[in-house]
Amino acid sequence: MDFVICQDMLKNASTNGQLFYQEKEAFSGVNKIAGKVMHDLELVFGYAPQSTNDRTKLGKHTIIYGTIGHSSILQELEEKTMIDLSEITGKREVYLFQVINQPIEGVESALLIAGSDKRGTIYGLFHLSERLGVSPLVDWSSVKPQRKESFSLSENLKYISKEPSVRYRGFFINDEWPAFGNWTMKNFGGFNAEMYDHVFELLLRLKGNYLWPAMWSARFSDEGPGLENAELADEYGVVMGASHHEPCLRYGEEYKYLRGENSIYGDAWNFKTNREGITKFWEDGLKRSGKFENVITVGMRGEQDTSIMGKNATLADNIELLRDVIQTQNRLIQENVNPNLSEVPRMLAFYKEVEPFFYGDKDTPGLMNSEELEDVILMLCDDNHGNLRTLPTKEMRDHKGGYGMYYHFDYHGGPISYEWINSSYLPKIWEQMTMAYDFGIRDLWIVNVGDVCTQEFPLSYFLDMAYDFEKWGTNALNKTDLYTKQWIEKQFGGVFGPNKMEKIRELLTGYTKIAHNRRPEHMNADVYHPVNYKETDQLLARIDYLLDLAEELYKQVDPEHFPAYFALVYYPTVGNLNLQKMWLLAGKNHYAAKLGKMEANKLSEQIKECLKRDRELVEQYHTIEDGKWYGMGLSEHIGFVHWNEDECQYPILMNVMPASKARLVVTVDGTDQHSEGSPWHKNKLYLNDFLEPDVEEASFTISSISDLQAEFKITCDHQWLICSKTSGTLDGLEKTNEKIDVKINRSAMSGETEGSIVVETPVGTVTIVVNASPIDVSNFPEKTFVDTKGFISIEAEHFILTQEAKSEQGDVHKFEVLHVYGKTLSAVKAFPTTEYFTPGKDAPYLEYQFVVQEAGKHELELYMQPSNPVSNDYKILCGIRVNDDEINIVNTLPEGYRVDDHNWAIRVLDNIDRHVSKINCHQGINTLRIYAVSPGFVLEKLVIYPEGKKPANSYLGPTETYYVGR
Amino acid sequence: MDFVICQDMLKNASTNGQLFYQEKEAFSGVNKIAGKVMHDLELVFGYAPQSTNDRTKLGKHTIIYGTIGHSSILQELEEKTMIDLSEITGKREVYLFQVINQPIEGVESALLIAGSDKRGTIYGLFHLSERLGVSPLVDWSSVKPQRKESFSLSENLKYISKEPSVRYRGFFINDEWPAFGNWTMKNFGGFNAEMYDHVFELLLRLKGNYLWPAMWSARFSDEGPGLENAELADEYGVVMGASHHEPCLRYGEEYKYLRGENSIYGDAWNFKTNREGITKFWEDGLKRSGKFENVITVGMRGEQDTSIMGKNATLADNIELLRDVIQTQNRLIQENVNPNLSEVPRMLAFYKEVEPFFYGDKDTPGLMNSEELEDVILMLCDDNHGNLRTLPTKEMRDHKGGYGMYYHFDYHGGPISYEWINSSYLPKIWEQMTMAYDFGIRDLWIVNVGDVCTQEFPLSYFLDMAYDFEKWGTNALNKTDLYTKQWIEKQFGGVFGPNKMEKIRELLTGYTKIAHNRRPEHMNADVYHPVNYKETDQLLARIDYLLDLAEELYKQVDPEHFPAYFALVYYPTVGNLNLQKMWLLAGKNHYAAKLGKMEANKLSEQIKECLKRDRELVEQYHTIEDGKWYGMGLSEHIGFVHWNEDECQYPILMNVMPASKARLVVTVDGTDQHSEGSPWHKNKLYLNDFLEPDVEEASFTISSISDLQAEFKITCDHQWLICSKTSGTLDGLEKTNEKIDVKINRSAMSGETEGSIVVETPVGTVTIVVNASPIDVSNFPEKTFVDTKGFISIEAEHFILTQEAKSEQGDVHKFEVLHVYGKTLSAVKAFPTTEYFTPGKDAPYLEYQFVVQEAGKHELELYMQPSNPVSNDYKILCGIRVNDDEINIVNTLPEGYRVDDHNWAIRVLDNIDRHVSKINCHQGINTLRIYAVSPGFVLEKLVIYPEGKKPANSYLGPTETYYVGR
Repeated sequence: MDFVICQDMLKNASTNGQLFYQEKEAFSGVNKIAGKVMHDLELVFGYAPQSTNDRTKLGKHTIIYGTIGHSSILQELEEKTMIDLSEITGKREVYLFQVINQPIEGVESALLIAGSDKRGTIYGLFHLSERLGVSPLVDWSSVKPQRKESFSLSENLKYISKEPSVRYRGFFINDEWPAFGNWTMKNFGGFNAEMYDHVFELLLRLKGNYLWPAMWSARFSDEGPGLENAELADEYGVVMGASHHEPCLRYGEEYKYLRGENSIYGDAWNFKTNREGITKFWEDGLKRSGKFENVITVGMRGEQDTSIMGKNATLADNIELLRDVIQTQNRLIQENVNPNLSEVPRMLAFYKEVEPFFYGDKDTPGLMNSEELEDVILMLCDDNHGNLRTLPTKEMRDHKGGYGMYYHFDYHGGPISYEWINSSYLPKIWEQMTMAYDFGIRDLWIVNVGDVCTQEFPLSYFLDMAYDFEKWGTNALNKTDLYTKQWIEKQFGGVFGPNKMEKIRELLTGYTKIAHNRRPEHMNADVYHPVNYKETDQLLARIDYLLDLAEELYKQVDPEHFPAYFALVYYPTVGNLNLQKMWLLAGKNHYAAKLGKMEANKLSEQIKECLKRDRELVEQYHTIEDGKWYGMGLSEHIGFVHWNEDECQYPILMNVMPASKARLVVTVDGTDQHSEGSPWHKNKLYLNDFLEPDVEEASFTISSISDLQAEFKITCDHQWLICSKTSGTLDGLEKTNEKIDVKINRSAMSGETEGSIVVETPVGTVTIVVNASPIDVSNFPEKTFVDTKGFISIEAEHFILTQEAKSEQGDVHKFEVLHVYGKTLSAVKAFPTTEYFTPGKDAPYLEYQFVVQEAGKHELELYMQPSNPVSNDYKILCGIRVNDDEINIVNTLPEGYRVDDHNWAIRVLDNIDRHVSKINCHQGINTLRIYAVSPGFVLEKLVIYPEGKKPANSYLGPTETYYVGR
Repeated sequence: MDFVICQDMLKNASTNGQLFYQEKEAFSGVNKIAGKVMHDLELVFGYAPQSTNDRTKLGKHTIIYGTIGHSSILQELEEKTMIDLSEITGKREVYLFQVINQPIEGVESALLIAGSDKRGTIYGLFHLSERLGVSPLVDWSSVKPQRKESFSLSENLKYISKEPSVRYRGFFINDEWPAFGNWTMKNFGGFNAEMYDHVFELLLRLKGNYLWPAMWSARFSDEGPGLENAELADEYGVVMGASHHEPCLRYGEEYKYLRGENSIYGDAWNFKTNREGITKFWEDGLKRSGKFENVITVGMRGEQDTSIMGKNATLADNIELLRDVIQTQNRLIQENVNPNLSEVPRMLAFYKEVEPFFYGDKDTPGLMNSEELEDVILMLCDDNHGNLRTLPTKEMRDHKGGYGMYYHFDYHGGPISYEWINSSYLPKIWEQMTMAYDFGIRDLWIVNVGDVCTQEFPLSYFLDMAYDFEKWGTNALNKTDLYTKQWIEKQFGGVFGPNKMEKIRELLTGYTKIAHNRRPEHMNADVYHPVNYKETDQLLARIDYLLDLAEELYKQVDPEHFPAYFALVYYPTVGNLNLQKMWLLAGKNHYAAKLGKMEANKLSEQIKECLKRDRELVEQYHTIEDGKWYGMGLSEHIGFVHWNEDECQYPILMNVMPASKARLVVTVDGTDQHSEGSPWHKNKLYLNDFLEPDVEEASFTISSISDLQAEFKITCDHQWLICSKTSGTLDGLEKTNEKIDVKINRSAMSGETEGSIVVETPVGTVTIVVNASPIDVSNFPEKTFVDTKGFISIEAEHFILTQEAKSEQGDVHKFEVLHVYGKTLSAVKAFPTTEYFTPGKDAPYLEYQFVVQEAGKHELELYMQPSNPVSNDYKILCGIRVNDDEINIVNTLPEGYRVDDHNWAIRVLDNIDRHVSKINCHQGINTLRIYAVSPGFVLEKLVIYPEGKKPANSYLGPTETYYVGR
């Protein structure tokens, strides 16, 4: 008999019997979670189910849940061979989810949820909610499920969950002031258990099991009140950790609180001068919290992310001190937690200056392979901006304790913080975290989510990948879009139809893609070039399109689902895009003002509008659902001039005063050419768009310099050259600009290579030379790039062939296209990601074909993901071969590159790495091969130009140029 | 009996008899000038005098005027030995001005004005007007003389004027569109004789005799109408010239007008391809105008200031062509004007590319000493920006034809034109033109006055110096102020009292001094540093002071004298200063905006006000006296981005949007230090003013970053340190800034070397460290400069001694202080200006004493007038000696310096030359000697600092630092 839940059953539970069978011996946390699931059912069916431990009061359809070793009914049913628990026994966090018939007298069909352990049962219970269409964000983000009349599970259903891919999976609430802090103070009165109940629920519903609590000002173990936070975590099976500089179950603020002249812990965070006090401090921490499930941080760092010893200490001094610290901590753990250290999850972070202590140098062995660290999870980290740093080498992967990764969706630090709003892009998380896993980082994944809010989308993805790497990991090439669709379905499946959900997908991928190109907090007026390649105007058009979509849905969503739409979609989308838009307008404003364009004044007003909208948006976020999110939008996010918000500046509004006579300026769109047509100065401009044989439309713009009526006349010297206007008038107030479209009719040309457009203005004459030399591409194969404008720009996926190679073991090495991962199109990356390849031997390569205007030295500029090297040699190599020249193995990193240096800062802000090398090109077709060599090489774009003749400057690089068959 | 004129005589002339005795044989031009003088008398006495040639109708007091050889009464009186004409006979432009008794029956006393030649008589007549208190600008500028009841000259009066110092003295109406052109079209209908009558009168009253007429579009010899312009000039004795590229009495536009396919003059301004046509063109010019008094231009240049031959022509080709041209022209002159060439005034200009043709090079002899040029005046020129170029060497000074100088008060060309308003400074004109004279340039002085208007003041000076070099030339060291006073007395003697005239002196010297530092047309927002050394604020305060003065007088002047006050004082003063002010405000606006200061928005409004005032001022100028000056203000004058006005731009207004929370920024006045007091960033500022032992007051400023109420608190840590406020509030709207004065009471200090001021703001704490280390200067002599701040800045006149030297001939060589000639104080220059001196032998030197903080290498930066070298070696040398080191002879010009190059462009815009050399300094007192070597070395300031530690950037250079006895 199928297992059924229906409204009627719940409505008349007193006669029909109760739905949930609850055992007293069950973990109290499990029962609490069952309570949450019962509440989910109430949301779905409109009536709250009840639980009972009186088997006679159960209904015909019953839910039985329990944890192996903590449930007599499980034992009973197994004994009756109604279920087979052996399939889950001894496994980590696994559950059996099965429909069984008549398990108990009077119960016709039961849904049995059996956990291999506490978290297994919890995940099993939440699995039911998910099957009922309840989002994991039901509590956190007020995502309301679709109402159901009834729900059934086939009587044959038997589902056994997998063991999670990564052992400890969780997030870190960090940088929690002013946003999270104000939020919890207002809503819960502190960083207490009432608040953490929601956080734990969020974590567990997302199938995480591990948390680092807020620690800027809060003391997790003291403010529950008292131990209540820790006790609640333990009850729920949430494994608590602490950040990299918080050893022995002590949170950072605690020492500040307890230290003092007369303190038993002394008054110095210094293991040399205050060994006794610090040791006591740790010991009491372990005594207090060692009884809970923890991953205990070991090691020690200075206060506020500083080095532990002075500047004059040698590497060896530091290593020895750290070894001493860890030995002491291990001893304390044995004494106070568990004499068998291998049973105590411990973690040591390599973060910033700790990293060299681990690796040592050629004269000084580091802590690597020390016995003190044998069972310790070694936690590596990204560069705070989403790019992994060093990863375990093949040898290192044998480390018994395994590895962890500390990743960032939010960061408070240099070069510029990003804490306001989500700006992480799923394809990047996939590219980086799959590499982490492939490199053996499988024991701990933690992500800094700042204030949590607006990070729900990437956080879901992060935890889903950590839980089920087989599904979402390396094999799931180009599946972030699928993930996004499924995620949207979970949140809005019952609310929006497919059409609207597709629009939400556009919004989420749209804003995160734009944020991937540049995070909103990292924007300023000088990022995108205001005119070159029209990159600013094209992005503005894209943003306006997305903003309109967001607005359309805003108007359509019903009040019940409005809060979730607002918090999960509208706010992060509009917040991001409006901010980006403001800065793009500022760039245009500054540029227009410098040319004296009256348009500048209009742009100023638009910038003001954006700032107003930003403020209104945060205000609205703070007021929806009676202030549920009050405080969450408070992080500063505009115009950072330092790494943090201090002295930040809104865009400067540049206004112009109208010229005293009627004047117009002519600009060629996509270029910085401009002229007012003075006979004494530059009055000839060049329109080169038609040099690309498939381009038939281009444009120029006429703009007011004064607020006086100014007429223009346009004449073309050939019939095949057509402008959208032959005359017009601008007034500099209402009408400050006129874009003139230019079309070319190649079939009407008879051998001409150029035409000209003459624009007469009140004070001058501008001649636009229209270059349109025809080129013969009939002899070139498809995908051959032909230089018509002085440079070639190639999207990496537009290779002419991709060549696999094999390892000695027969493994296939090959490049794959990572869709939508480039700043302008996509990227290519070689797999397996862990391999070092040898060009000419086992390295896969990509081949490109191109024709240059003149033979000779050229420069090849590669645009790459700003990956850090996975090993300490500070190299990311690739091989470049042009025609029959030798393969040139180049290091794409700047000389002496280090994470945190100046080059790095530019790379992480721009989210691109550029590398130029010299190549020799000959007449006719040239062949360029790019060989994979080092891990981390992810290529997005290639630009080729004659030596010293770099194309015009821009943020995204030149737009892709013509290729045969485009 | 004294000679008397009184109202009554004139009122009742019919009974009393007429005042002027007029002969028919007199030059008609002289009689016309007498008519103008009679009109002057009418202005003075209220009644118009009459003239008669009937001796019986003369009154008791009579004015007799005549020219030797053209007056029977002069002959008669000389024969009667009543006068002695021998004293003037044969002299140039000299007159006898004498009171004689009873020259004619019935005439009791006569004023006799006898000219040695036509211009002598005219100058004599105008001498009477001047004695009557009539300004030479009576006609041109509507300067109304003071009314008189009567006027008398002692019966003993006998005055013989001097021969003018410079033979041809005049001005060039140039760059006459849009201003002069619109003016004359509206008021006179063209560039005709009606208009030139006023110009000639102005020239002659100012004691000039030579004119280059407007030639951009006008044809002087055709538009009188017809020859009337030339005929009128000749009648008045005005010697006509033409600019450098207008040979043989043909004006530039004429050829354009006459050329053509079928023209007898051909259709190419090319002596090689159209020799016949060009020769005919010249010949007809000489035939037409050769009968008048002229200085005939010889030589030839390409059209529109271009080179005559193509780019591939060699120097020798060019020289030979030019020689051929001159030979042809000489022949034509002999045939058509005067067979005796030595009697025909001719002029050849060395201007731009013609200069090398004159000098040649080491392989190619130039035209220098050619027989073709024997009697030709060789005209040299300045660099278009008031700095002389090469001057005649001792040998060259023997050239029989003598030399001329073409000087500029107005320029249409690079690096940036200046055509709107007077910006020439008398001390500079003195310094440069005395050098011209000393170097033997005494035959022709011509100055480009653009549209004439607003140039009346410097033009008067230029012509007075040319007329009476003994009075106003080299001997008149530091007498420009005296000249200014006298000039004001001439214009406003009867209108304003001494107090007000002193204010006018302040205005004229004030605005021209500021324009000397930077011409208004050359201003932009980045010239003066917005904060360093407070140079912007100090200049703004000075400008506001002067603007207030101008306004005060504006309100007080009576309607009759208003036009003259407006045109000669108010308009040029306010026009200049308001424009300078606008740019200074723009610099402050941009700086404030970049710091996010709310003040920026107020500054924007002030800039707008300045632009409005500029427009209103021009409008008013165009409407006073029924449009007398209509058109004269039309030249563009704001924001040049090219050498000419095309694409010029008003200042960009930068506005800020208020920060979202109450924020304040603290800035230390006079420096670019700023802080909002963040604990993470720069929050410590340094107030170093008190390091100078005589400074007891300094300041810092607190400014709003938001429009929210923001409080600040100020605490000082010592009693001897006092701030003008201890707390306050800014609102960011009405009150955006507060300047806090800091005082120090040194007598209350007890050994401290620093104090600190703590400023608490809503978001931070700024600490201002007040450095006040006492220094002991008791052992240093007066005028010893002591480095207290890391550098020393010395005004050139603050030497400790000046040492004369003597030439072998016993001539004294010495430095003189040129008061008010420096950008910040004064300058020093060695005399005689023509000499080359040898340090250690005959070179005078200046000695400075200074104490540095640490012994070692220092840099010595000399600030000098941007003189060009007087000879072709492109060097301006001086000698530098520090302590007992060798004398270092340095070339203060940049390597490879040439007029018109990039370095030159910066020098003429900045009006300064800076040169850095290395010196070695030791502990204690150092002695620095500066020796004069080359002509043209004019030193203003010396700055000394440790090598590589240049003081903060500024336009004027660091303010003078402390010296003992300051």
